Amino acid sequence: MKIVTGGVCAAKGFYANGVHCGIRKNRTKKDLALIFSEVKASAAAVYTTNLVKGAPLLVTKQHLEDGYAQAIICNSGNANTCNANGIEIAEQTSDLLAKKLGISNNDIVVASTGVIGQPMNISPFEIGIPTLAVGLNKEGSDAAAEGIMTTDTVKKEIALEFEIGGKTCRIGGIAKGSGMIHPNMATMLVFITTDVKISPKMLQNALSSDIKNTFNMLSVDGDTSTNDMVVVLANGMADNDEIVSEGEDFKKFMKALNTLTISLCREIAGDGEGATKLLECNVIGADTDANAKTVAKSVICSSLLKAAMFGADANWGRVLCAIGYSGADVDVNKIDVSFKSPKGEILVCKDGAGVDFSEEIAKEILLEKEIEININLNSGSYGSTAWGCDLTYDYVKINGDYRT
Amino acid sequence: MKIVTGGVCAAKGFYANGVHCGIRKNRTKKDLALIFSEVKASAAAVYTTNLVKGAPLLVTKQHLEDGYAQAIICNSGNANTCNANGIEIAEQTSDLLAKKLGISNNDIVVASTGVIGQPMNISPFEIGIPTLAVGLNKEGSDAAAEGIMTTDTVKKEIALEFEIGGKTCRIGGIAKGSGMIHPNMATMLVFITTDVKISPKMLQNALSSDIKNTFNMLSVDGDTSTNDMVVVLANGMADNDEIVSEGEDFKKFMKALNTLTISLCREIAGDGEGATKLLECNVIGADTDANAKTVAKSVICSSLLKAAMFGADANWGRVLCAIGYSGADVDVNKIDVSFKSPKGEILVCKDGAGVDFSEEIAKEILLEKEIEININLNSGSYGSTAWGCDLTYDYVKINGDYRT
Repeated sequence: MKIVTGGVCAAKGFYANGVHCGIRKNRTKKDLALIFSEVKASAAAVYTTNLVKGAPLLVTKQHLEDGYAQAIICNSGNANTCNANGIEIAEQTSDLLAKKLGISNNDIVVASTGVIGQPMNISPFEIGIPTLAVGLNKEGSDAAAEGIMTTDTVKKEIALEFEIGGKTCRIGGIAKGSGMIHPNMATMLVFITTDVKISPKMLQNALSSDIKNTFNMLSVDGDTSTNDMVVVLANGMADNDEIVSEGEDFKKFMKALNTLTISLCREIAGDGEGATKLLECNVIGADTDANAKTVAKSVICSSLLKAAMFGADANWGRVLCAIGYSGADVDVNKIDVSFKSPKGEILVCKDGAGVDFSEEIAKEILLEKEIEININLNSGSYGSTAWGCDLTYDYVKINGDYRT
Repeated sequence: MKIVTGGVCAAKGFYANGVHCGIRKNRTKKDLALIFSEVKASAAAVYTTNLVKGAPLLVTKQHLEDGYAQAIICNSGNANTCNANGIEIAEQTSDLLAKKLGISNNDIVVASTGVIGQPMNISPFEIGIPTLAVGLNKEGSDAAAEGIMTTDTVKKEIALEFEIGGKTCRIGGIAKGSGMIHPNMATMLVFITTDVKISPKMLQNALSSDIKNTFNMLSVDGDTSTNDMVVVLANGMADNDEIVSEGEDFKKFMKALNTLTISLCREIAGDGEGATKLLECNVIGADTDANAKTVAKSVICSSLLKAAMFGADANWGRVLCAIGYSGADVDVNKIDVSFKSPKGEILVCKDGAGVDFSEEIAKEILLEKEIEININLNSGSYGSTAWGCDLTYDYVKINGDYRT
């Protein structure tokens, strides 16, 4: 497997574009993105479990019932959520695009991200969609990634090349997500394209299985968004034997998908609102998979630990505290904790109690940009990883006045 | 019922004191507190559900098995949690105090608050306890309240006078709590004294019932502490007919207890680490008590909403978002939301969608120090209230380097 350029256009037959259409006031910021496959693709998706759902999610869910899609359109600047005319707007958007591209309305994925509860108007879409469609190109992944950004400070895209049954395959993805990130059986906005030939059913199986260990183990602020969605389109143009069941080929696809989604998780966590550090919590020695996940997620979500990491303070008591209230059934007297970064690793807690350690070395380790919080529960052989970021002044600043 | 002075010494027969004994480096900060009843008192307590528990909690639980106690000792500056010799220190503290006061070791409540996982030494207690005991006095509640403070910026104490069966009764309490506040089936440190005559069993019933609507509906940062504890001592010196079952007298006591605990909840929330605003979320129209509580708690815990309140931004979409992911079964299309403060009340969301409102008036309302977030689920007759605070730069500052 190797990393390649091209993002969501890396796979055969995919084109993308991003434009400014007027949903955002700032004309220099793109606010509309399009991804298009020249042939119909198997499609799989997962959605937020928030009861308050963006209107585009309801429309998309309906469109994907048959397991196929050919285009993804997504605007930023307005979540199209809690709007009286939300469904109407999402359907009109889909109609406009279907006509312009000459494809079925039913093969379009619609997504939105931005402020909740702001009235929405179809006219920016009427203006933007023709330009957007005409400009579709093989180098358009960057523009599409820009078009879906909100408080993100960096574009999030990656593509990989791998082989299935002697055929060269590619998979690429873009993501947006910085605040309101606490996926729960779903995730933020991620669009993935691949030329692998795979049935809609196996594609959905792959995605649903993958997110349990990737996007569902990610948290920036504990707030599960109303508009979370991950969509994968697989257009089959790599011409491998179609994957219709589990086996070697499915495993290879899963591995590529997993490598891609972990990379996007790390990008989202590292670019969390206001974040200065990417945090990765690795739990080993758990007696069950569920306990491993619960502990990792609880630690990565602790406001107190996140603030301590911002301050490069080796306050391991907060790790123990977060394990203790996680709800996981653990023996607290067996827990070991260490902090690790490119500067080294330092053990700070052994058997649930503090050990003598150099505060100077701990500080040096924690001043780095990527920190691992490594926890051994010493009670079994299950493990799990969760990703998050530190809690900073800038998170408060960004969210103290997000709407203006 | 009327508010009186005296805190935990307001009730007959109670004395208190607070001193600096050397657990903290700063000599101007008291770090050891004592509350004493001249006669043995009925005692009830609730504790944190965190699996990682401070050593003093385990010792106290044992001492309260018989339902009686006569003194409470509490240090700040060190949580005595995750220490190899924690139990030993808590027991030695209790022994030293028992000898000095001439009471049974088994009648002493021991508590600690401060940094987790710092080695602890008995010598500050050996130095402090004699001075502490000798100085017990009727005006000592202030000193005791100071002795248990950590990052608290204000002392939290209150006392009430009421009548049961023609007898004048009093109840008073002190509390500490500012960060790591997210009580779960228990609470932070609260010590309550009363001269009401009530059996240990009914006292425990009263406390266990009360906290469901008070301390368990309070959150500063979502982190459930390892050292949470609420203790009530009732020494019977008001000479009312002993309360041994439910009825009028029990109801009167419950009402006084509830008034006291809600006041302390509001004080703790308003003094949350870094807080500039007290937030109160009132939910009405729920179909069950559980849904009302879940919604109120979820809204008060949302980092995004807390940051918006800091910025006086009427971002009601975040209220809807937090209701949606709360786990409560609600009809999102029926939800009304308004913001209220001494400057007035403004409706911002009706039937789950935005309404036209004046941003200027909303801003004026939200610039106040006490904000109500009022939610009507329009689905039944249950209600609930939760308390919290805004998320500010100072929360990050305080917790970026708590240990030094």
